[in-house]
Parts: sequence; C-alpha cells; structure tokens
Amino acid sequence: MRAVWLENQVLSFRENVPESGLLKGEALVKVRLAGICGTDLELVKGYYPYCGIPGHEFVGVIEQAPDATARVGQRVVADINVGCGKCSDCLASGHKHCKTRSVLGIKNRQGAFADYLSLPLQNLIPIPETVSDEAAVFTEPLAAALQIQQQIQIGDADSVLVIGAGRLGQLIAQTLASLAGQLTVVARYKSQQVLLSAHDIDWTQAGGIRDRSFAIVIEATGSPAGFALARQAVRPRGTIVLKSTYRDTDVSKWPLQLSSLVVDEITVVGSRCGPMATALDQLEQKRVDPTGLIAKRYFLNDALAAFEHAAAPGALKILFQITP
Amino acid sequence: MRAVWLENQVLSFRENVPESGLLKGEALVKVRLAGICGTDLELVKGYYPYCGIPGHEFVGVIEQAPDATARVGQRVVADINVGCGKCSDCLASGHKHCKTRSVLGIKNRQGAFADYLSLPLQNLIPIPETVSDEAAVFTEPLAAALQIQQQIQIGDADSVLVIGAGRLGQLIAQTLASLAGQLTVVARYKSQQVLLSAHDIDWTQAGGIRDRSFAIVIEATGSPAGFALARQAVRPRGTIVLKSTYRDTDVSKWPLQLSSLVVDEITVVGSRCGPMATALDQLEQKRVDPTGLIAKRYFLNDALAAFEHAAAPGALKILFQITP
Repeated sequence: MRAVWLENQVLSFRENVPESGLLKGEALVKVRLAGICGTDLELVKGYYPYCGIPGHEFVGVIEQAPDATARVGQRVVADINVGCGKCSDCLASGHKHCKTRSVLGIKNRQGAFADYLSLPLQNLIPIPETVSDEAAVFTEPLAAALQIQQQIQIGDADSVLVIGAGRLGQLIAQTLASLAGQLTVVARYKSQQVLLSAHDIDWTQAGGIRDRSFAIVIEATGSPAGFALARQAVRPRGTIVLKSTYRDTDVSKWPLQLSSLVVDEITVVGSRCGPMATALDQLEQKRVDPTGLIAKRYFLNDALAAFEHAAAPGALKILFQITP
Repeated sequence: MRAVWLENQVLSFRENVPESGLLKGEALVKVRLAGICGTDLELVKGYYPYCGIPGHEFVGVIEQAPDATARVGQRVVADINVGCGKCSDCLASGHKHCKTRSVLGIKNRQGAFADYLSLPLQNLIPIPETVSDEAAVFTEPLAAALQIQQQIQIGDADSVLVIGAGRLGQLIAQTLASLAGQLTVVARYKSQQVLLSAHDIDWTQAGGIRDRSFAIVIEATGSPAGFALARQAVRPRGTIVLKSTYRDTDVSKWPLQLSSLVVDEITVVGSRCGPMATALDQLEQKRVDPTGLIAKRYFLNDALAAFEHAAAPGALKILFQITP
C-alpha cells in the first residue's frame, strides 16, 4: 500500500509498504482523511524514536473485521491507545497509561498516513451520520481538548487563559468558550486571530497578559516561552494545564522553580488524550466547529510538502486526502 | 531583648536587640516556646536572603495590645502571613499570597526566636485551655500538613505515600492515617521509624517502593532524590504534592521532565501554610499528638547548638524554651 514513512527523522513517501496483518479482535480500516498534528512534527524532530508510518488523527471505513463482520462498511474514528488490559496501570489508570501500550502512529503501531491501518475493534468508534469526514477527522484532537474538563473544574467564576492558538489551542478555546467566566487566548498569527474572532473569542498577544491574573492557564504551545508565560500569568493558588508534548531533553531551558510552585501553591496538571465519544457528541451537536481550521489538503505522495506546510509558523490543520 | 540573629547566613545570639515598635492593630507577644523548622534551616543555608530574627513556630502570651486591651494575657499561636488586604492577590488568593506580605521570621518581619514579637491582632489565635504549650507550638506545621486536605481529595480508595518522616512528614502522616485507604511513609532514620510505629503507621525504606503504585505521593524532604522518588512512585493520573521549600537554584539537578507529566497525566500541587484554627481543633480533640516529635529543648543563648542539632540527619523537633 501507499504510506508516508518516517525513519531516523527522515520522511518519505513509499508505494509498496506491506499492510500489517490483523491480530485477533482487530479490524482493517481503509483511511479516507488524516490530519497532521503537532506530535507528528515532534516525531520528525526526534522527540520520540519512532520508525514507521506516522499519523493518528483519521477518518476511515472498516474493510475487514473477521471477528465482527457486521461492522464492515462502518465509518469510524479511533481511540489511538491499545493497552494490554491486564496490568496494574491498565486497571488503575486506564489502557492509555499501559506501559506496554501501542499508540497509533506514535508507538509500536503503524499509523494513519497510509491506505490502510489496523486497530482492535473496541478502539473503533462509529461516526454519527450527520458528522462529515472533515469534522470527524478532528475527533482525536477535540477529545484531547475536552480532557481538560475531565481533569479540572472550570466554571463561571474562572478566568482562563489559553496560550497558543494553533491546531490544538483553537479547539481548546472553542470547548471552553461557553464554560469559562472569562476566556482569553494568546494568538500570535493573523490567521489564528481571525479564526478566534470568527468564534467571538477574545485574543491578545503575549505582551498583553497581566502577571498573576488568571485562575487557570492552559499551555498549548509546547515551548519554553509558552511555559514561562503560563507561570507568569497564573495567579497564586491557580492551575496550569500542560497540553502539549515537550521536547525537553535540555531541562536547563525550562524555567520551572519547584519552590515557587510551593510558595504560590500552583497546581500543574499534565493532560493527554481524551474521551472520543464526548468529542463525537460535541461534533454531532455542532457545539464545536473545527472545519474552519483546515488550511489545505495534500495527497500522500506530497507528504514532504504537507509536513513542511504544517510546520510553518501559524499554520493550522493540514490534511491528507487518502481516498476520496 | 534577647534574640537569635541571622545575617549573611551567619547565626548568632544577641542580648540587646531592640523590640519592633507596634503598628496600629498590632500586639506585642511574649514568646514562651518556639520550634525550629526546615525552612529556618534553609534560611541559614541561603535559600532566601533573610536578615533578622528567624522563627515562625511559637506559643506566646499577649503582653500589649493597645487596640484590644481585653486580649492581654491571652495565650496565642499565629497565622504567620501578613498581607496588605487590598491588592488583587489578597482578594483573589488570600493574604498569604500578597506580593508585599510580610511573614514572621521569614520575610520583612522579625521572628519568634526572641523574647518578644509583634503581629496584627487578627493574626493571633487563642489556644484552647486543654492544649499544652508543647502541643500548641506545633500548630503552624500541623496547619501546613492539614493544608494538603484542603487542596486535594483523599479518601478510602486512595493509596498514599509520604516521602520523608522528619518534622513535617510525621505530622502529615498523622493527619492522613485515618483518611487514606492505605498509607506508607518513607522513613530513613530509626528515630523516625520508631515514632511512626508508635502511631501504627506503616513505613518503609526508599528501596521498598514499587514504581507507579501510589495514587497520591506527598514529597516532604525538599531534596532532588525525594522528588525523583515521588515521580517514580506515583501512578499515571496520580498526584504529587510538594510540601517542602526547595533550594533549587540549580534547576539542572531537578529531574522534572515536563513531557512525562503530560504523557502520564500527573498533577503536581504546591502546598504551603494551612488553616491554623483547624490545626488547633485537631490538637484539642487529641486527633494528632505531636509532642512525641520533641527531641530536645535549648535556651536562646544556645542557638548555634540548637540549629546544629536540628540540622543533624534524622533530627526531629528542636524547641527554644524562651520563657518558662
């Protein structure tokens, strides 16, 4: 099959990558549409030593399901984490925290930038009929945005700052707009600002943020500067949510003083993948409209151009149109 | 008056330190008993550039109170933070987070290792008659221990690890013993282990901790090794409470990888001073018995020996007997 291949931080398009065989309980999915995420860009930069097909945001159709033939033809998105289901981590914290987990296109499992992928049937979630492919391809990052609400209480009385108005920041902002008492987004680029304004969401530049003034700060840039701004902007007793993967091998670049967290009684919350069913529900109810984030579609054989576009400053969502 | 004096990280005993004058609303307190805390030891090591009389854990008697003469003679402990009461930090987060606050014996306010100290009347809390001086002198650190329960939910279903069984760790362990489903304390020294056993609290050595096995880990050592152990011991989606001030100017010594907090969805909570009234209440109800922590009493003129004793490995609480 055709696929994008990542090896030693070098991306290429390949025509003849063999499909992964199906394990018991797995289904073969024909991929229609897939999105490039910040994590994919970090994989290319070497944040994690991944070798194989990247991609974990997708919409597809079940083409083979030996253990559930009735599901063939179903249009699906997926929970991308596959745990063993038996270890203490799976039992106590859920399969996304299994130490031996595979993660679609990120860890030990070929990803979505290809004609086909395979996943356990239980990971594949049917898409409601009224949700378009273009909206459903955002289910995974939208779930990640909604995970914030699963982890911390956000209400009318809370002033919330989202740092970063890229792919994930935009979705976070849309999910919090009706929830937070006051919402501000730090948006650096014109395209980001325009999109926020279209959703009636207040934005500002980093320089416009008053120190110690937000009860909740969500860091969605994954950069040391973003984290430093979060630390400045949060008020004492406030909460910083870390929503990005960081390539922080050089820890000295990180301005985190543990003592200052104690003195100001700051809470720092790491936040990752979220509830896919809730995300699909929000898309079905049109409470979030992610399609405005789509910047451009590419074909698989244009993978290098697609990744280059996705990595450009201020770029929003780049999609691969894999089957029409 | 007599006082312990700290200047340029050098401690001395002085006979003729002038008393601080009383501002409007303040009272003069004759100190009876005062305790040396880990923070005092950190001040001596230069964690914070404090010059003056250290000491913030004390029991005393109100000797002058121009604005409330009826309170003269009251036996008191104190909330050690004095905020301006007007700024956005005071209003949003409480006076202990005021940027211009003074803190008894820690910041801009002479402390308790002296014959007298002064504090606003509203900071001085009467001690119930049945609580001895020896118990009441632990009110401030006990309140700091109880602050954990104010910040996070701890219940029957939670496995809790306390790292460090020194002065603060012992109090934390006593406050959580009846609350947590399962409580384990990492105790390095024999004296610490004996005291925990006397309260029927399970303890172990650092080597006895299984990775990723505790829902809540409370770090009470203030050392890089303690923090590293906390990070190892907490399970995915778990919570680490930072309960010590850290002298972390050399951030490269700190093994905190922000990405790993995101991937494992760890919450880190900074925790400082706590509710004094609740602490006094627990002492009155004999739900906590701190007096077993007292290692030795010193007179003020033996300050150097007292601090040396307090800094010895495994030392528990050292008190200054200031007036009989």
